[in-house]
Amino acid sequence: MTELTIEGMSCGHCVKAVEGALRALPGVTSVEVEVGRARVEGDVELAALVAAIEDEDFEVVSPAG
Amino acid sequence: MTELTIEGMSCGHCVKAVEGALRALPGVTSVEVEVGRARVEGDVELAALVAAIEDEDFEVVSPAG
Repeated sequence: MTELTIEGMSCGHCVKAVEGALRALPGVTSVEVEVGRARVEGDVELAALVAAIEDEDFEVVSPAG
Repeated sequence: MTELTIEGMSCGHCVKAVEGALRALPGVTSVEVEVGRARVEGDVELAALVAAIEDEDFEVVSPAG
């Protein structure tokens, strides 16, 4: 399980954007997102998770990507 | 031109949700949205504008709908 702290999320639309981006990644089996945080399970590299979130214009602040 | 003050918007996703909902209304010819405010031109009833925004889970606080 990887837990990411995310800056720039403010609302349910942001939650859905992050959820959708993470769920679309190959290897991801489970995603749980709230404002400011995502928990991901699966066989996926941290760098891919971070890139997916940053593509949605949020910033991953922990763990460092 | 109708100007609406809207509560509950916080980010660009919210802006896009409101924009999309208003642009989809028959009679609307121009939509300009920022966080907390929408300006709409066209031949459309205020009640329809308010309903479209509230369907996106925001609250129109002015003018009263």
